Amino acid sequence: MIIVLKEATAKQTMQTLKNHFEGTTDVFTHNNRIALNKVKPEQLTDEEKAGAEEIIMNHPAAVQGSREFHPEDTVIKLRHTTIGGDTGLTMMSGPCSVESEEHVKAMASVAKEGGATVLRGGAFKPRTSPYTFQGLGVDGLKYLREAADEQGMDMITEVMDEEHLDVVLEYTDVLQIGARNMQNFSLLKAVGKVDKPVLLKRGMSASIDDLLNAAEYIAAGGNHQIILSERGIRSFDSKYTRNLFDVSAMPVLKKLTHYPLIADPSHAEGHWDLVTPMALSAVAAGADGIVVEIHDNPEKALSDGPQALKPDTYLEMTRKAFALADTLQELNMGKEAVING
Amino acid sequence: MIIVLKEATAKQTMQTLKNHFEGTTDVFTHNNRIALNKVKPEQLTDEEKAGAEEIIMNHPAAVQGSREFHPEDTVIKLRHTTIGGDTGLTMMSGPCSVESEEHVKAMASVAKEGGATVLRGGAFKPRTSPYTFQGLGVDGLKYLREAADEQGMDMITEVMDEEHLDVVLEYTDVLQIGARNMQNFSLLKAVGKVDKPVLLKRGMSASIDDLLNAAEYIAAGGNHQIILSERGIRSFDSKYTRNLFDVSAMPVLKKLTHYPLIADPSHAEGHWDLVTPMALSAVAAGADGIVVEIHDNPEKALSDGPQALKPDTYLEMTRKAFALADTLQELNMGKEAVING
Amino acid sequence: MIIVLKEATAKQTMQTLKNHFEGTTDVFTHNNRIALNKVKPEQLTDEEKAGAEEIIMNHPAAVQGSREFHPEDTVIKLRHTTIGGDTGLTMMSGPCSVESEEHVKAMASVAKEGGATVLRGGAFKPRTSPYTFQGLGVDGLKYLREAADEQGMDMITEVMDEEHLDVVLEYTDVLQIGARNMQNFSLLKAVGKVDKPVLLKRGMSASIDDLLNAAEYIAAGGNHQIILSERGIRSFDSKYTRNLFDVSAMPVLKKLTHYPLIADPSHAEGHWDLVTPMALSAVAAGADGIVVEIHDNPEKALSDGPQALKPDTYLEMTRKAFALADTLQELNMGKEAVING
Amino acid sequence: MIIVLKEATAKQTMQTLKNHFEGTTDVFTHNNRIALNKVKPEQLTDEEKAGAEEIIMNHPAAVQGSREFHPEDTVIKLRHTTIGGDTGLTMMSGPCSVESEEHVKAMASVAKEGGATVLRGGAFKPRTSPYTFQGLGVDGLKYLREAADEQGMDMITEVMDEEHLDVVLEYTDVLQIGARNMQNFSLLKAVGKVDKPVLLKRGMSASIDDLLNAAEYIAAGGNHQIILSERGIRSFDSKYTRNLFDVSAMPVLKKLTHYPLIADPSHAEGHWDLVTPMALSAVAAGADGIVVEIHDNPEKALSDGPQALKPDTYLEMTRKAFALADTLQELNMGKEAVING
Repeated sequence: MIIVLKEATAKQTMQTLKNHFEGTTDVFTHNNRIALNKVKPEQLTDEEKAGAEEIIMNHPAAVQGSREFHPEDTVIKLRHTTIGGDTGLTMMSGPCSVESEEHVKAMASVAKEGGATVLRGGAFKPRTSPYTFQGLGVDGLKYLREAADEQGMDMITEVMDEEHLDVVLEYTDVLQIGARNMQNFSLLKAVGKVDKPVLLKRGMSASIDDLLNAAEYIAAGGNHQIILSERGIRSFDSKYTRNLFDVSAMPVLKKLTHYPLIADPSHAEGHWDLVTPMALSAVAAGADGIVVEIHDNPEKALSDGPQALKPDTYLEMTRKAFALADTLQELNMGKEAVING
Repeated sequence: MIIVLKEATAKQTMQTLKNHFEGTTDVFTHNNRIALNKVKPEQLTDEEKAGAEEIIMNHPAAVQGSREFHPEDTVIKLRHTTIGGDTGLTMMSGPCSVESEEHVKAMASVAKEGGATVLRGGAFKPRTSPYTFQGLGVDGLKYLREAADEQGMDMITEVMDEEHLDVVLEYTDVLQIGARNMQNFSLLKAVGKVDKPVLLKRGMSASIDDLLNAAEYIAAGGNHQIILSERGIRSFDSKYTRNLFDVSAMPVLKKLTHYPLIADPSHAEGHWDLVTPMALSAVAAGADGIVVEIHDNPEKALSDGPQALKPDTYLEMTRKAFALADTLQELNMGKEAVING
Repeated sequence: MIIVLKEATAKQTMQTLKNHFEGTTDVFTHNNRIALNKVKPEQLTDEEKAGAEEIIMNHPAAVQGSREFHPEDTVIKLRHTTIGGDTGLTMMSGPCSVESEEHVKAMASVAKEGGATVLRGGAFKPRTSPYTFQGLGVDGLKYLREAADEQGMDMITEVMDEEHLDVVLEYTDVLQIGARNMQNFSLLKAVGKVDKPVLLKRGMSASIDDLLNAAEYIAAGGNHQIILSERGIRSFDSKYTRNLFDVSAMPVLKKLTHYPLIADPSHAEGHWDLVTPMALSAVAAGADGIVVEIHDNPEKALSDGPQALKPDTYLEMTRKAFALADTLQELNMGKEAVING
Repeated sequence: MIIVLKEATAKQTMQTLKNHFEGTTDVFTHNNRIALNKVKPEQLTDEEKAGAEEIIMNHPAAVQGSREFHPEDTVIKLRHTTIGGDTGLTMMSGPCSVESEEHVKAMASVAKEGGATVLRGGAFKPRTSPYTFQGLGVDGLKYLREAADEQGMDMITEVMDEEHLDVVLEYTDVLQIGARNMQNFSLLKAVGKVDKPVLLKRGMSASIDDLLNAAEYIAAGGNHQIILSERGIRSFDSKYTRNLFDVSAMPVLKKLTHYPLIADPSHAEGHWDLVTPMALSAVAAGADGIVVEIHDNPEKALSDGPQALKPDTYLEMTRKAFALADTLQELNMGKEAVING
């Protein structure tokens, strides 16, 4: 149950409801809204009912992530970057893996030139086979931090387990949970307790509800700085694309949740020449940002070379993506995007 | 084998090759290119080899549809409409089913107002259950033709079987083959013999190669006026979307084939409020056109009401789609879209 | 609405209901059951209500195929073969394509030796590419008929379009509708009017309900001799199997419908060494029969060689399959298979 | 590269190869076979080549799990149970979650009566939503251990993270890694270092190769007591089954790997009345064992009630499954299962 409280008495009714239900069920509050898990209308007192402007019964299980509970967009604020809300397009770029200090610094410079405010790069890498490059570990974190600082950028990198959470937190601005760990509930609970934003990638066969419930594990721990990312799902045809990029997850998620959405066309497509059109497509569908992989020598990349953009292609892509985002903003100005109803 | 002929001797070598191979294998020609199915280099005479600028061996089975055989975009020309190439965005709109003379005429007026040049509408409807509305049949064709003519538009409608091919051809400008018939090879062969464009919808679990091979059945019959359409594929999550819109089929197909691409966000999504963002997304990904369903009273529609745009929403969508297409054209002007290589 | 009529007054109430509703809605009858499409309880007269033992409202759209309307198993009777009900295992075998008179006769002899009572073989072949072997056509039908007659077997072959329906009917005992035509509604309507059994293959991305609705098109035309066949669906991993064999479609369909079920492990798997275990698996899951492809020289087969069983492997497979079916029959004797409720 | 060593000189060549390559690449040995990751034939000395009976180059990335490296079946030996090889059918049964001491003991007694030798039950539960029952934790482990000991059974339970690995190991005989953690590589590395068998469940969209590579993470750590489990994958139709049970994973995996295979029809189907036919189907397809959930009062189960078998249904299922396994063993006696080649 979500109760929207009458403004005049919101503060007082909120307190009454907390006193009544805390300890017996999950109670979450946001502005003048309160969510009470598994509570039925008949459990409310007359006073509590009188303080309700509206009672919403059929909300999603992932209540804290829902628009019913939290109608306004969540905006993530970093030192150099804002993500979500009216920010416009946020660009996150960098190499797939941190390969060396020099390399990541060179890529950071390219990323920045293309308008990126967040530098991405993997130090701990989830690889399908145990016998492939597993990342530079803590050294990778250091190089990525230095590269980001040099360019005045924020940094995002993946954390794969609780064991390395502290060391990753020491360096990064945003934690990334990879697609393969989307339902690693122990890890989700762990990052739910930290005070840094978490970018949660959609699992390869995760439904929209699965993704929202996974995010709810983080919110349930008290961390509401959540970013969702679509990076391609499993489908029946992988001859020309690595995964199937579910672009329509953008408007679907925008409707259901207040968290910002970052599209990842690099992992979704797996081929560099599809990255630009699909980045534009994600922007047109409503993504708040794009995360894209760059490499100056993709053939020699230690991971995921085929999907990396070379610097020139990257700069061309970001030029178009920002221009497209501007056009879309103008088109929406002063108009509701959607008016069928 | 595809042979690109030296320009100077193209005409003569072409004739020599035809004389040599016609009757023993499939021979197709396009400008200075000739395709010889299952022929090996050692079967060529020295003279034939001398006339070859380039010999391409590993072309797709669907050779006539391939860029290797036909590098330039196919452009479809109708009385009021051009589709593909440098045309810019082509809009095809109308009701899902033709419901009555009055209704289709009213919808045609809305379609035209939104910039559509092709009027769509179903007279013979492929419905999942035999006990639901199956279309108005020939009456539907008549009403649709009159509505199109009244607005100075071209017309597209589905043909479901050879039996009705003649009567549909009597009325329509473009034949549509529905997703469920994408591999109805007998029907594909039949429309391969007519002299009108065919819009072929991708089957719900058709791979990209399946789609191109299905189109090749039409081309093999001699009809090269082919348009391909992505309308959503089967996936594991149908809670919020009817199908999964494979937007990246746009750049993938652009790379592989010369046929124009029409995206169908209405059937892909199945919910009207997702149609606008996904139409924009398809335009950004490189679609040559959009086909979209409109209805003034979706609740009362005889088929697919939930995905129909009301007139106001439709006009708002087309305003944005055309503006976006303009922006993209400007962005690409004087620049190759893709430069990684 | 399905009404189960009280036995004592069934005949009379049936007539009353027919008089009342025929002409205004679809009316179907089976024994003492009558189905009235889209009729609501309040439309029944008191006398009609009095004659009802039970009124079933939430039946599937494909009502004639449902257990609610037709609780007993449908049994298909051919000259040499019975399919469904208490028949035990029916074996359908033969080459993928009819390749020559001699070859199909040799394969028929092997099929018979393995216990098959139905000879399969394609004369009109639905091939992905227009440039591959499309079948021997009418000659293929003749050879198949002769081979079947020589062995005292019944015959099944695919019909791809209405145009060839008459000639196929001239030769075959059972019509096959292929997976790619499962939703070719015009063809389904056509075979709905003939007086021979139809084996309907599940489309590659057809849901269980799609399959039942497709079968309903046949039943709606008056042909109730329907057999359903699972032959593998599209999935995300086609490295080791051509399709994904949905074995659990057997018990699911047994619960929902009365039509017999034939499993096709050859097309589902695409590799001969998986055919035997998966044939056994389908028998254990409740299939009424197996259709399996055989070839004495798979490397030279004109279609689908990799999935064909050589004679020895085939005989070994059928030996096991029949033995397994016997064991299962003994195990179920005198016991309900399922007792949780 | 895998080298099969000549028997006469195996010991000596093995040592030579180890001296040559250990420290520079991954070296694995099994009987007279040695695997050298990423080594090319030209790196071998003449002496090394002379000691080779056969050199296998195109082996899978997951080399230790492959039949090329380890042709014989792995057999897992527990105190009361054997799994794999010629064991015959192993039955693992118990409640989804451990709900109370009494309940798990009652269920253990039923499990044992049905022929199960391994008791299953969840103490730490991976649940889609954070607001549902998360398991009894350490108390659950204790109750499960006591119940298993009381019945003279072995015990299997899930470990969700490294943090709880020690406490789970204190109680259990077999560790289970759940489908959602199949690519939690940190957890896989952790269980790769323990000396207890690990049952690894296939992820919901894991390809066969993904599963084998995940298992290889465990083997790479030195733990070769690995059991693989198919429990249903994501597909497009979830109206009648929770997941799609990939029964053909049994023969596919039997061909590729030596690890024992346990089928989980309960999670695959999600509906109790499909569990028996699909358990039989998995046995017929070659599963080494079945894991199945039981509950005396499914409506009140704290998790996954709809898929639980009541005691009577369970006993009926196991009676059939063991009888079927016996029949299959007789049918295969003295015969190779597969003889096409």
